[in-house]
Amino acid sequence: MQGPKRARVGSEMGDIGLITDAAMIVRDGKIEAVGPQDEIEWIAPADADYCDAGGRLITPGLVDAHTHLVFGGDRLDDFEARSQGKTYAEIATDGGGIWRTVGATRPLNTEELAKRASHHFDLLGRHGTTIAEAKTGYALDRDGELRSLRALQSLRPRVVPTLLAAHAYPKDQDPEAYLAMVCGELVPLAAREELARDVDVFVEEGYFSHEDAERLALAARAHGLGLRMHVDQLADSGGAVLAARLGARTADHLEHTGADGIAALVEAGVAPVLLPGSVWGLGLSRYPLGREMVDAGLPVVLATDFNPGSSPVPSLPFCMALACRFMRMTPAECLTAVTVNAAATLGLETSHGALMPGMAADFAVWEAEDYRELAYWPDVATVHGLPGICYNLNFR
Amino acid sequence: MQGPKRARVGSEMGDIGLITDAAMIVRDGKIEAVGPQDEIEWIAPADADYCDAGGRLITPGLVDAHTHLVFGGDRLDDFEARSQGKTYAEIATDGGGIWRTVGATRPLNTEELAKRASHHFDLLGRHGTTIAEAKTGYALDRDGELRSLRALQSLRPRVVPTLLAAHAYPKDQDPEAYLAMVCGELVPLAAREELARDVDVFVEEGYFSHEDAERLALAARAHGLGLRMHVDQLADSGGAVLAARLGARTADHLEHTGADGIAALVEAGVAPVLLPGSVWGLGLSRYPLGREMVDAGLPVVLATDFNPGSSPVPSLPFCMALACRFMRMTPAECLTAVTVNAAATLGLETSHGALMPGMAADFAVWEAEDYRELAYWPDVATVHGLPGICYNLNFR
Repeated sequence: MQGPKRARVGSEMGDIGLITDAAMIVRDGKIEAVGPQDEIEWIAPADADYCDAGGRLITPGLVDAHTHLVFGGDRLDDFEARSQGKTYAEIATDGGGIWRTVGATRPLNTEELAKRASHHFDLLGRHGTTIAEAKTGYALDRDGELRSLRALQSLRPRVVPTLLAAHAYPKDQDPEAYLAMVCGELVPLAAREELARDVDVFVEEGYFSHEDAERLALAARAHGLGLRMHVDQLADSGGAVLAARLGARTADHLEHTGADGIAALVEAGVAPVLLPGSVWGLGLSRYPLGREMVDAGLPVVLATDFNPGSSPVPSLPFCMALACRFMRMTPAECLTAVTVNAAATLGLETSHGALMPGMAADFAVWEAEDYRELAYWPDVATVHGLPGICYNLNFR
Repeated sequence: MQGPKRARVGSEMGDIGLITDAAMIVRDGKIEAVGPQDEIEWIAPADADYCDAGGRLITPGLVDAHTHLVFGGDRLDDFEARSQGKTYAEIATDGGGIWRTVGATRPLNTEELAKRASHHFDLLGRHGTTIAEAKTGYALDRDGELRSLRALQSLRPRVVPTLLAAHAYPKDQDPEAYLAMVCGELVPLAAREELARDVDVFVEEGYFSHEDAERLALAARAHGLGLRMHVDQLADSGGAVLAARLGARTADHLEHTGADGIAALVEAGVAPVLLPGSVWGLGLSRYPLGREMVDAGLPVVLATDFNPGSSPVPSLPFCMALACRFMRMTPAECLTAVTVNAAATLGLETSHGALMPGMAADFAVWEAEDYRELAYWPDVATVHGLPGICYNLNFR
């Protein structure tokens, strides 16, 4: 992938700078040169170790810009109940939904949370991800959210933590007191101790209001943290327009965002993070307007939304497969959306998401020859190795 | 899985005979005993080798009752064109569609076809399949269809071949002459040389008519071959009713089959083989009425329809994941649909698809503890080993 070290927009998203018969020189964990093999071999040091990838596709390590890695328990009972036709409300009444996960997360100490987060990150890695954003949001009390943030520190720099204490209002606390605590204690603490890069909030009817989000945005800005937002997942509640007005880095989900919202995101330069895995995971059929967002010139990002409830999906290639089939994005656009554009939302566009001289030697080797195979058959085009996070790379 | 050695219907489909803390005694490739560990250990021979599955889930080897394993080339260009919004007709005009695959299949000799079929079967195996039905149908001329059938012989008994010369009318031959050749030459030859167990036909507007299917059914019956049918995939053309009238073993696809078709299948005792992977693969949203078919008492089967055009999906667990999310089938019903019910359509219900004394020791060990994980997150609950087809089984 060549070109400027920034997110790609519009027709740039289809230009992945493919090199056939490529070679790469890596020194001290960084890319020194990359290009056609017959050019690179002239400049390779005589004493270089040589690895043959066997004609396999190599891409940048994938970057997952929206995940929920810190939680306890599972949601298999909810999943089975949904397959039996139970509604979300019925499942919640039976003790399911997010409260099942909160109940399984709160009792865990930092070490136990870190172990689970690490296991979940490993699941992403098996599908080519080397860098992931990860949100808290399954403890929903002061100490549990802090433990969740601290658990994520052990995964740095592979994981970029986000404070999502505003995932839902806790059932057992006064909403106003909870939001005041989040804005007045957790956000300042997360900033002071550098526990999170961004703050996130779930804006939806029955969750956090526009006013709530504005309070959080002010707190985040006051303490130098960025803003990511869950908006327009369940209905078009003007969330994209709100994200634009609040100057969010990213507006995530956007399943119900229409032309007005897209125009607002363009105007404000907010990156849309689209999460087709959660549409699929919930058995729904309304996907965000990926094609229209690319055409509007937005730096579209695809992410897994990995979480136990709506998106038990660790695979970015599977999300690419969904985007090609249900959002009219091309395989090339999808690859851009899970590499350079995703990295840009994490401030990593100069080091990750592309294979260019000076950038990290962070790449994935695939059981595939053609990059389109990742989206065509993600169950076949699997990961052969990830040097970046020290998986065994059995070149042959 | 306990119970009678036959397909399960209605509420039986939800009863998978789960045993926790289970153990199994295997001798000479067959199951000698299976049950709770504390019962089995009393009857295990003193000199038995002992393998510890580490608490992992063990299921019967999965049975894929509808696949297309014999083809050359790929369909990546078609896939990319579809993601760009091109219609099937436009893609066909550009040299795509089934004719792209026919063009890449016809030049291959039997050995080359066998190599590809074997590779494709291996892709299924990585997702837990140990037995698969496999159809011809990408040569569409006499000799190419015969080579395709012969290529599948090398995969017996893991693969059960079906003659699908009536997949589409070849563009370069007279339709009447082609059908006469299929009925008068290929079907008798396939029967005489035992190259196929069943004959299949694609019944749809623009493909084979009800009358064509009837001629094929008569030829198949005259030569002792069974009948499988592709029906009601693109529209409700009365295909399920036709399959019932012709006494087919299976009616496959059924995306557009309604109550009348279901009633006809029940009356005639035809097994519905549902293929959610091809609905997903084509980016469509209309799935067959799986729930209604279970409730109507049909022995519902799920299969991958693995093929390069509409379903580059080798994973039965992924098909289970789709059926739970989009067809309101439960994880247990899905497991029955890819094991005992699938085996029954291939005449293997007394040897495969269940783990019972006297049956083949053909099983899959999963990176999962709970059977519901297969449908919940097929990208996580992956295969640990398949003794039946000699994958490395690294018990620990």
